[in-house]
Amino acid sequence: MNVEKYKIEELNEVTIKVHQRKFTALLDEIRDVDSVLKKLLDFNIAIPSWALGTGRTRFARFAGGGEPRSLEEKIEDIGLLHKLNQSSGAISLHIPWDIPKSPNDIRSLAAMHGIRFDAMNSNTFQDQPGQKHSYKFGSMQHVQSEVRKQAVDHNIDVINYGIELGSKSITVWLSDGSCFPGQLNFRRAFENTLESLSEVYKHLPSDWKMFVEYKAFEPNFYSTTVGDWGQSLLYASKLGEKAYTLVDLGHHLPNANIEQIVALLLMEGKLGGFHFNDSKYGDDDLTVGSVKPYQLFLIFNELIDGMDARGMSHSTDLGWMIDASHNVKDPLEDLIQSVEAIMIAYAQALLVDREQLRKAQEQNDTVMGQEILQKAFRTDVRPLVAEARLLSGGTLNPLQAFRTLKIRENLIKERGLKTISTGL
Amino acid sequence: MNVEKYKIEELNEVTIKVHQRKFTALLDEIRDVDSVLKKLLDFNIAIPSWALGTGRTRFARFAGGGEPRSLEEKIEDIGLLHKLNQSSGAISLHIPWDIPKSPNDIRSLAAMHGIRFDAMNSNTFQDQPGQKHSYKFGSMQHVQSEVRKQAVDHNIDVINYGIELGSKSITVWLSDGSCFPGQLNFRRAFENTLESLSEVYKHLPSDWKMFVEYKAFEPNFYSTTVGDWGQSLLYASKLGEKAYTLVDLGHHLPNANIEQIVALLLMEGKLGGFHFNDSKYGDDDLTVGSVKPYQLFLIFNELIDGMDARGMSHSTDLGWMIDASHNVKDPLEDLIQSVEAIMIAYAQALLVDREQLRKAQEQNDTVMGQEILQKAFRTDVRPLVAEARLLSGGTLNPLQAFRTLKIRENLIKERGLKTISTGL
Amino acid sequence: MNVEKYKIEELNEVTIKVHQRKFTALLDEIRDVDSVLKKLLDFNIAIPSWALGTGRTRFARFAGGGEPRSLEEKIEDIGLLHKLNQSSGAISLHIPWDIPKSPNDIRSLAAMHGIRFDAMNSNTFQDQPGQKHSYKFGSMQHVQSEVRKQAVDHNIDVINYGIELGSKSITVWLSDGSCFPGQLNFRRAFENTLESLSEVYKHLPSDWKMFVEYKAFEPNFYSTTVGDWGQSLLYASKLGEKAYTLVDLGHHLPNANIEQIVALLLMEGKLGGFHFNDSKYGDDDLTVGSVKPYQLFLIFNELIDGMDARGMSHSTDLGWMIDASHNVKDPLEDLIQSVEAIMIAYAQALLVDREQLRKAQEQNDTVMGQEILQKAFRTDVRPLVAEARLLSGGTLNPLQAFRTLKIRENLIKERGLKTISTGL
Amino acid sequence: MNVEKYKIEELNEVTIKVHQRKFTALLDEIRDVDSVLKKLLDFNIAIPSWALGTGRTRFARFAGGGEPRSLEEKIEDIGLLHKLNQSSGAISLHIPWDIPKSPNDIRSLAAMHGIRFDAMNSNTFQDQPGQKHSYKFGSMQHVQSEVRKQAVDHNIDVINYGIELGSKSITVWLSDGSCFPGQLNFRRAFENTLESLSEVYKHLPSDWKMFVEYKAFEPNFYSTTVGDWGQSLLYASKLGEKAYTLVDLGHHLPNANIEQIVALLLMEGKLGGFHFNDSKYGDDDLTVGSVKPYQLFLIFNELIDGMDARGMSHSTDLGWMIDASHNVKDPLEDLIQSVEAIMIAYAQALLVDREQLRKAQEQNDTVMGQEILQKAFRTDVRPLVAEARLLSGGTLNPLQAFRTLKIRENLIKERGLKTISTGL
Repeated sequence: MNVEKYKIEELNEVTIKVHQRKFTALLDEIRDVDSVLKKLLDFNIAIPSWALGTGRTRFARFAGGGEPRSLEEKIEDIGLLHKLNQSSGAISLHIPWDIPKSPNDIRSLAAMHGIRFDAMNSNTFQDQPGQKHSYKFGSMQHVQSEVRKQAVDHNIDVINYGIELGSKSITVWLSDGSCFPGQLNFRRAFENTLESLSEVYKHLPSDWKMFVEYKAFEPNFYSTTVGDWGQSLLYASKLGEKAYTLVDLGHHLPNANIEQIVALLLMEGKLGGFHFNDSKYGDDDLTVGSVKPYQLFLIFNELIDGMDARGMSHSTDLGWMIDASHNVKDPLEDLIQSVEAIMIAYAQALLVDREQLRKAQEQNDTVMGQEILQKAFRTDVRPLVAEARLLSGGTLNPLQAFRTLKIRENLIKERGLKTISTGL
Repeated sequence: MNVEKYKIEELNEVTIKVHQRKFTALLDEIRDVDSVLKKLLDFNIAIPSWALGTGRTRFARFAGGGEPRSLEEKIEDIGLLHKLNQSSGAISLHIPWDIPKSPNDIRSLAAMHGIRFDAMNSNTFQDQPGQKHSYKFGSMQHVQSEVRKQAVDHNIDVINYGIELGSKSITVWLSDGSCFPGQLNFRRAFENTLESLSEVYKHLPSDWKMFVEYKAFEPNFYSTTVGDWGQSLLYASKLGEKAYTLVDLGHHLPNANIEQIVALLLMEGKLGGFHFNDSKYGDDDLTVGSVKPYQLFLIFNELIDGMDARGMSHSTDLGWMIDASHNVKDPLEDLIQSVEAIMIAYAQALLVDREQLRKAQEQNDTVMGQEILQKAFRTDVRPLVAEARLLSGGTLNPLQAFRTLKIRENLIKERGLKTISTGL
Repeated sequence: MNVEKYKIEELNEVTIKVHQRKFTALLDEIRDVDSVLKKLLDFNIAIPSWALGTGRTRFARFAGGGEPRSLEEKIEDIGLLHKLNQSSGAISLHIPWDIPKSPNDIRSLAAMHGIRFDAMNSNTFQDQPGQKHSYKFGSMQHVQSEVRKQAVDHNIDVINYGIELGSKSITVWLSDGSCFPGQLNFRRAFENTLESLSEVYKHLPSDWKMFVEYKAFEPNFYSTTVGDWGQSLLYASKLGEKAYTLVDLGHHLPNANIEQIVALLLMEGKLGGFHFNDSKYGDDDLTVGSVKPYQLFLIFNELIDGMDARGMSHSTDLGWMIDASHNVKDPLEDLIQSVEAIMIAYAQALLVDREQLRKAQEQNDTVMGQEILQKAFRTDVRPLVAEARLLSGGTLNPLQAFRTLKIRENLIKERGLKTISTGL
Repeated sequence: MNVEKYKIEELNEVTIKVHQRKFTALLDEIRDVDSVLKKLLDFNIAIPSWALGTGRTRFARFAGGGEPRSLEEKIEDIGLLHKLNQSSGAISLHIPWDIPKSPNDIRSLAAMHGIRFDAMNSNTFQDQPGQKHSYKFGSMQHVQSEVRKQAVDHNIDVINYGIELGSKSITVWLSDGSCFPGQLNFRRAFENTLESLSEVYKHLPSDWKMFVEYKAFEPNFYSTTVGDWGQSLLYASKLGEKAYTLVDLGHHLPNANIEQIVALLLMEGKLGGFHFNDSKYGDDDLTVGSVKPYQLFLIFNELIDGMDARGMSHSTDLGWMIDASHNVKDPLEDLIQSVEAIMIAYAQALLVDREQLRKAQEQNDTVMGQEILQKAFRTDVRPLVAEARLLSGGTLNPLQAFRTLKIRENLIKERGLKTISTGL
């Protein structure tokens, strides 16, 4: 399915006047609106290939329809998304689910849609058909060196696929850990994992980054071998300067202060990337911003503060990615809401008066510190984000456009009602 | 200290034009703005007398200055607050900290400030000097009947004080519970507590309500005898139709869905009152809205939905109270922020398009359900809340007014730098 | 595969002397050992049919081998287990995974193994092939009456299957809930669910019980419609005297005091059944006793205290069942460890000196209360539990027997390496 | 009060026969009992001076009687404790609560009781009378350098007091953090704290250690500047080889795997010390072993494994200390239970068959890994711990001795009923 430019323009025409009025009213609240719009225009969030299909829990999967059946169709989906919001011009592939038959063709297809290849993702948390060794008891942590080697080799394969596609980073998420006290020697598991990661690190091209993702629990329910930011930072520090920590919002113990973790990792020069989602209980993988929008804003507040302090580029120096599980929503609609929520939080955080905030903090003016943050958060920046979309050729209201253009209905027509897109 | 009406008008004049522009811009987003304003005008939040002084943790207390030294000065403080925001015209007293020497004088003083007497609070979580029996091992749950009787008698005293002042309800918060497995027989503790509460209930005037507050933990760290909404509802149901459950936002286990609890208690006709604060870890008693503003909105969303379904009055049929501990903020500034946050959440929830929401829910349109709620939440209702204050004679910006009028400095001048107002 | 009696006797002979020495040494610590042994002998824990195969997480499933391929083989597995430990003489079936072709044959087969039919389990958390309406947005809570009716009809079918097999209860676990704020009207969801449950309740034979299971979260990650014991108790109270609450150890918010919940439900006469497992983070479904053995003991302590207070039979008046997910252990070995852990906790709790405990509690002797419980808990009751097994014809050491007799190897020989037994 | 040796012997005589029978029965289960006993004999746990009085919550304090009124009486109390259990021959002082008037006299007094001086504790979480700058907004993190300097100077004072007394370490616990988003710049707070700690570190004698304690929350409720082991390790690594992380069992987010943290810190050579207590919800400061005895065992299991791997001495290479708040128990009885629980967990962990465990782990025999740990945990080692006490001249049953000898009654006679010993 294709969404022609004129259709977007037609849709925008209907609401442009209301938009302009709201946007104009907002202008008084924003200093240097051009700079803010520029930053919003530059900002892109990568879509993981597995997010284009309906997700599952361990109990069930309730499929929707019209889900992409191939890597090509996944790129097509992201192309549609990007056309609507102009902020999701990147894809994050997963191997082996997305092994490209012809990397060149895939590159061309992606380029046609204005999509680049973000971090590659390896998979040693499942056994694939025909796989020699099982990951039942871990992969890079495994007590047997041949299993570790298999996991290392797989990651090297993933890097090689990435090189062909023009990716510049690999995200290593390990489900390695244990379910019961006594199952694992924590120290040996750490040492084995470090050794395995070092092997992969050796094969990292000089302009690549390795993201070491951490997660508190699930699918292992007693210990996880890369379980928190402290462990991830230990690995990344020992591996070398191309290794970084990756933060996934759902991968923490209850009540963790994620924004502080982000600030400290940036301080150490070791924050590499971000997986956006939201959660109430665990790794719920809900739509980012749907449960704790203020936390999302506070995280962006630290991201901006920390990146600016190091002179980092907001748009290119960290890997930004959505990582959610769309169990009860249309995946594309969910991604539209996700990108919107991220842009809103980013825009709000850009509005924070940092000079005033610094002053309040230096005077221990706690009341004012809260006021300054909440002033930015309570500002209704939706017109600002819409304006950025308008300027870049996207739709004023992507969700409305998605429904008006009957995109899902068309995809179902093309692909059928029963399709499966992920390997979970 | 007194804030004359002309001073408020002078202050409002400075910002009235900016306010009017913002309010006008907002009008397009609000259907039936008069009805919304009317509801905001009617809404008042009670201030607990102990919130006017600096709070403490178990480690330390870092006092501010100019804190009220008497019940009269506490009423004066709330009077100042109410003058600024016109939304805090009620006080919630604590016995024995606030025993009025002359109830009539106190009633007159409060009336002069436009303040009524909300729920009375008893205290059986501390031992008072000269008290015969200790509450070290509980009060209403106590294994010894004489201790239970002492606690019951105290609560009856509290009711009697309340009758003299014109209060219509008593909040019973029990810290009763246990710190160690084996300390307590849960069943007997429940039965003793029920028996004690029944004794108090017998003395409740016919037009009074009893609020049974629950709390998951602290100051007891193994079990609490009124530990969750289920237990509180059991007590309230067994006690009778004048007994209700009181929800304090900080009194839950991690990740509890408080808005669902609120909805169910309203469904059962057993929600009686509310203690507002915010928390990240436990009963942190932080400023309401400072950590989880979206949760606050969702709770108000359920409150409105549930109260409307039962034809309840938003302003009078539930007891609304702040209950926070102002450890690092000026207590009055903290209360200004608290009331503002509550009014904002209430206003946002009033904007929810309930007809559309119902339709989305009936179609399982999860995406649209989220959109409808977030549309209301993301609307910047600060001008709306300010307009309500303006209409009722308050200040457009209470916090700014507090600082410009140098209220704290004046109170310090009057009362001194070292004053203590709470009994904690 | 069959384990002949003589084999068990041969195995026991090897270790009988060591056992007798240990058991004798223990006798000094136990008052009225015969009564304790009698209770242990009478105690049986039902095995759910789905626990006989390797479990899965939402990420992966790592199958073992020799798993049962049919209901008959599931019964065979439990028969083997029961032969070893003589404490698992009951099976809990799941419909539609275990629809018996010939109920009579199944009854005979079970009887041959000394196995009775415990609670039946319905399934409205998955869509089955050919099912008319989807449970994607709930079953008994569903906004559409035809979906609710389908769910009700399914539960009635389950009851009918149960009647044919001789079961006396149905466990209703609903995954109904919502993933996002706005998705659901909590009140209507409750009312719909209550109405649906009432329909099922109407079809309950007079000597049956209905267990209403609650769960805090997962697979829905924002709200659950039967989310905690308070909600379950509300449903059970409104349904009638044959309806009870069922407690699953993994279905609570972090830090919940489950033993207190158990005590209160027993006090109300509304505790119906129990699902044993263990967890550190959520519904981890780990082997019961593997992470928090003291909590398990404390729960049994309340169970005994509460049941004795009501004159209930330990062995028959509550439904006891294991409900775990065996992801990294051999399912049968895991069940052996589970039953052993339950028997140990039960035995320890039987040793609690209740008279002394009552005295300590009446004197607020917290130190002694803890001592009395820990004395029982720290007693090494393994010889006691082994003696009970010996008396009933089981093995002294079931795990060792399982391995020595090469039971899994034999099952693999009979059934093959790649078998699937659950419907998850 | 003094407990003469003959009294202890008299008490032991009464129960010696029962003890010997139990101990003998246990011998079969223990390989190399002499080595185990030797380790138990060598093991001592320091008592913090503030644990000798009744603790408080933020709501209340319910004092007992006979509490020590001076440093001398605190040492006397620990002397009594040590006489009974022979395992608490160390005291951990807190400045300014325990400033010794004459260090030499205090040293002599302690020596007389067989007590050495463990880690010194500084206090920058409270304001002391006459203190120039307030710690309301932090100490070592403070935005103003003069406040930081005051905190640094205080810590240097503490070191100097410690040198005079023969201590060899300082524990720095900072309550520094923030209560509200916006209050603090996380990065600057970290940098300030690091700079302050570095100043203190410079004054550390060459044979001293600095313990950097972390805590997730309380008394600050939004962020803590040394909030988790990752942050503490960052500080300790940047400070130098004399700086270590200190683990307090109650200072973690819900469900944290503390034993894994311990293992990793030992792996890094950066675990310095331990604060024992227990908790269900937060920093509850309950008696160690009273709520989660298996967790305590698992931690000791890692401690032994990790220390042995580095050739560390169990008794001298880590700082062992109790840190609890005795709110509802007699402090001395609580400390008796605490030391007993620690010795039991240590003894159980010493019984783990590490060779078998290693084998099970190398074969991914999860079932056996659990069995091996639980075998040790379920062994009733109370006679073993009692035997160690007997060998060292202590009582077989310290709690019974404490009560039989009417120690508290005697202390009340000597010191009175209303005494206050802590500065909280």
